[in-house]
Amino acid sequence: MFQIPDWAFEFHGHKCPFMPIGYRMGTLAMQKLRVNKSPNHEMHVLSEMGVGHPQGCMQDGIMASTGATFGKGLIEKLYYGKVAATFWYPEKGGIRIALKNEFADSLAPHEFFKFRKKGIQPSEIPEDVRQDIINRVLKATDEELFNVKMLPDFKYTPLKGSFNKTKCEVCGEYVFERYLRIKDGKKVCIPCSGQEPAEKGFYYPGFEN
Amino acid sequence: MFQIPDWAFEFHGHKCPFMPIGYRMGTLAMQKLRVNKSPNHEMHVLSEMGVGHPQGCMQDGIMASTGATFGKGLIEKLYYGKVAATFWYPEKGGIRIALKNEFADSLAPHEFFKFRKKGIQPSEIPEDVRQDIINRVLKATDEELFNVKMLPDFKYTPLKGSFNKTKCEVCGEYVFERYLRIKDGKKVCIPCSGQEPAEKGFYYPGFEN
Repeated sequence: MFQIPDWAFEFHGHKCPFMPIGYRMGTLAMQKLRVNKSPNHEMHVLSEMGVGHPQGCMQDGIMASTGATFGKGLIEKLYYGKVAATFWYPEKGGIRIALKNEFADSLAPHEFFKFRKKGIQPSEIPEDVRQDIINRVLKATDEELFNVKMLPDFKYTPLKGSFNKTKCEVCGEYVFERYLRIKDGKKVCIPCSGQEPAEKGFYYPGFEN
Repeated sequence: MFQIPDWAFEFHGHKCPFMPIGYRMGTLAMQKLRVNKSPNHEMHVLSEMGVGHPQGCMQDGIMASTGATFGKGLIEKLYYGKVAATFWYPEKGGIRIALKNEFADSLAPHEFFKFRKKGIQPSEIPEDVRQDIINRVLKATDEELFNVKMLPDFKYTPLKGSFNKTKCEVCGEYVFERYLRIKDGKKVCIPCSGQEPAEKGFYYPGFEN
């Protein structure tokens, strides 16, 4: 049976089947690309998940197994609403891995999802129910779980970074150079400039700064 | 001295000072809001970090201490280029925590950054150099590290999710309902529709799907 370290559940915060699915997806990507976990800024992941739907927990598993973390800027969402991701590693090309419909269908009738659809949060679901569905993920073969497509020509160019920063001349806080704007001749941060960020994640309704 | 569990470094992939700064930031936010680590979908974090600059590692520390993870959809980037974040917890309001300029300035001359600015990745920096700068973070007081602003009236409305999904009538893959589009009368996924996603993260130059 596939093993997942306890700390990955500790990081994630609860026991559910999708963190392990993502952990296995990341592990398979590394095997197929013949690479190890990324200590620094090696692997980049383009996750096809979006917002407003379940199963995003997969992404915490991907980060835990591959080291391609959100903090290190190595995982992005493509907002396609699919349980799939493309993994790219320098000089190794890419690989797309998607959860098989058949495996999703085989899990769907499980008691775990009956609780979830009633609005019960994962940590409140009985432990034996959670462990049972996790074991199904851990016992499945890679072939039962995933469709795999090698993408040897997949191109990805990581953004070149800069250490330059300056204090905003209005609020006084440090700002990295990319995000400085000019207002009345002064170098200011985006909130002090009154401008919108040029880059945006998804805008959640209801967020008022 | 503040303690950080080994698994948080294991998750992050390397030892650096900014993962611990984020871990402490998240810990302080939980203390001030009088809440515990989020097992499910409680705390939401709006990070002021962007892309193309260092110190994003902070966000891995925030996720590790608070449980507000990327996979669970609980952390977003605001793309302001600042080492700061706002934490919101249901019925508790918000808090903004920013790294003090003075603390950033006190770390800046450290040998760790001389290596980093030469392009040397964190895992390649000598262990004693890394441990020394981490200890500076762990030994500092919250007052030395952070500016804190309570935001009792901060409003945030988490997106309401849906479990509904359908197979794309072209590629056959499952798609969550929010991301289905219509093409020639068929329900299809965004890539099969030829449309652009309505929601986007930051577009990296060089990414060709």
